[in-house]
Amino acid sequence: MTRSDPAAELTREVLDRVGATPDPRLRALLDAAVRHLHAFAGEVGLTPDEWLAGIRFLTAVGQTSDAQRQEFILLSDTLGVSSLVETIAHPAAGVATEATVLGPFYVPGAPWRAFGDSIAILDPSGVPASVRGRVCGPSGAGLAGAVLDVWQCASNGLYDVQDPDQPRGNMRGRFRADDDGRFSFRTTRPVSYQIPSDGPVGALLRASGRHAWRAAHIHVIVSADGHLPVTTHLFDSADSYLDSDAVFGVRESLVKEFVPQTDGSMLVEHEFVLRAA
Amino acid sequence: MTRSDPAAELTREVLDRVGATPDPRLRALLDAAVRHLHAFAGEVGLTPDEWLAGIRFLTAVGQTSDAQRQEFILLSDTLGVSSLVETIAHPAAGVATEATVLGPFYVPGAPWRAFGDSIAILDPSGVPASVRGRVCGPSGAGLAGAVLDVWQCASNGLYDVQDPDQPRGNMRGRFRADDDGRFSFRTTRPVSYQIPSDGPVGALLRASGRHAWRAAHIHVIVSADGHLPVTTHLFDSADSYLDSDAVFGVRESLVKEFVPQTDGSMLVEHEFVLRAA
Repeated sequence: MTRSDPAAELTREVLDRVGATPDPRLRALLDAAVRHLHAFAGEVGLTPDEWLAGIRFLTAVGQTSDAQRQEFILLSDTLGVSSLVETIAHPAAGVATEATVLGPFYVPGAPWRAFGDSIAILDPSGVPASVRGRVCGPSGAGLAGAVLDVWQCASNGLYDVQDPDQPRGNMRGRFRADDDGRFSFRTTRPVSYQIPSDGPVGALLRASGRHAWRAAHIHVIVSADGHLPVTTHLFDSADSYLDSDAVFGVRESLVKEFVPQTDGSMLVEHEFVLRAA
Repeated sequence: MTRSDPAAELTREVLDRVGATPDPRLRALLDAAVRHLHAFAGEVGLTPDEWLAGIRFLTAVGQTSDAQRQEFILLSDTLGVSSLVETIAHPAAGVATEATVLGPFYVPGAPWRAFGDSIAILDPSGVPASVRGRVCGPSGAGLAGAVLDVWQCASNGLYDVQDPDQPRGNMRGRFRADDDGRFSFRTTRPVSYQIPSDGPVGALLRASGRHAWRAAHIHVIVSADGHLPVTTHLFDSADSYLDSDAVFGVRESLVKEFVPQTDGSMLVEHEFVLRAA
C-alpha cells in the first residue's frame, strides 16, 4: 500500500493522539510543539545521523546541569528563547521600562540594605560606581516604597554563587525607594564576563563561530504596590559586547552611560517606569 | 525607544548571529531550529513559568538517560519525531518495504544463526512461531545472500538487555538468505509491551491521557549487496495496539497475519523488497 504523503499522515496521527490531552493548555502546547518539531525535521530533511547527534547533544545538556549550573537555561539563553519569552511576557508599552532575561544567577532573599549603601562587600579591584534614580508609574508620579532587588558579578566576572572566595550576598542587595520613589545605591562598575563555556552549549557556540561574552550589566527586579514588577538590566554604554551579547539580553533603552566623577568613581542615573497592575 | 515588533526584531537578531556558523549544514539546522523554536514560543504565548517547567522537564529527560536507557530517544519516539525521521530518510518508493523506527534496543553484532534456526534460546512461555519469506530487489529477483538482523522482546515483554534472567543474544540473530533470496527462522510470537514509563516521558504520556504500549512486533534490518538496507518491523495483525502504538511505528504494509499451524505454532510469511543502492 502506498500513500500520497506518509510524513504528513504521520504528523496528523501524532496531532490526533496529543489532541486527547485533558488539560486544554497542555494540549495547546503539545499540539504546537509537535507541529513545529515535525515542520523543522521536514524542512531540513533531518537525517537519522543528525537526529542521533541531536539526541546526544540534548542528553549532554541535561547531564551537565546540576544544583549550581543549569545548562538548558544556558542553551535557551544562547538561542534567544529566554529573551523572547521575556519579551512576550512584558511587551514594550510606551514609556514602561523594558524587561530582559533573568539569567541563572538570581538568588531570592538578597540582604536588605539602606538607601545609598553598597552591595560591593568584597570587590577590591572594582571601580566604585553609584546608581541613582527614580521609580515611577506610567503617569510619571514617583512610587513611594518601590523595591529594587539588585545583583551583579564582581570585577573578576564571577557571581558570589560561582566563587568560593566571595561571601554569600556579595554584590547583591534589596533597596527601598523613598517617598518620592527615589533610590540610590553603590556598587562597582560591572564588567563583561563569559557564560560557562566548558559544556555542550560552549561547544555549540564555538561550532557557530560565536563568543560567550555578556555585555557588562547590573541586574535589577523593580517592584511596587499596584504595579507590574519588571526584571531588567542596566547595561554600560562603553561595553564592547552590546551588539553581540551571548544571550541576546541587550535592549537599547537599557544602555546607560557611566559618567566619571571627580573622585574617580562613576555615576549612572536611570528612571524605572512600571506599568499599573 | 519603542520598536514596532520587538519579538520579531529579536528573532532576526538571533538568526543573524547563527547565520555566521561556518559549516553550511549546521548553519541551516540552527537557522531552522531557531525559527521554529521562536515561532512555537510566539504562537502559544509561552509564559516564563511554562518556559521554566519545560526547562525542568528537558533537564529531567537528560538526567534519566544512562548507559541502559535513553529517555530523549523515548521522548522523540512518543512525539513521533523518530518515526518521522525514518519516513523522511526512507520515503515509500513503489513496492519497496517501508522503514520504521529502530528503537532503543538494537544491539549490533547479534549471533549468526543457521537457516531455519531459532532466536528464542530462552523463552519457555512463548508461542512458537516461524518466519519465512524472501528478500528481493525492485524487479522482484531474489537477492542471494541477503542478511536479516532480527531482534524482539521475550514473552515477558523484556529485551535481553533489560532482563538479567535472559542470556545475552537471546531473541536476537543474524540470518543469511539462500541463493534465491529465501530466508527462514524461528522465534516466539511477539507480545505487546510497555515502553519505560517511570520517568518524565511516562509522566508526559499520563498527562496526555496516553498509554505506553507498543504493538507486538519483530524488528529486522534487511541488507543486501548493491541495495539500500531497510530498518523495519513485522507487526502482528491480531494485536490490540496497532492503532495506538506509543511510538507511531506501525505502517499498514508491515502488519502481517500470524497463521496457526496444526502443531500449535504460528507461521508468518513476508517478502522484503529492497531498493537499488
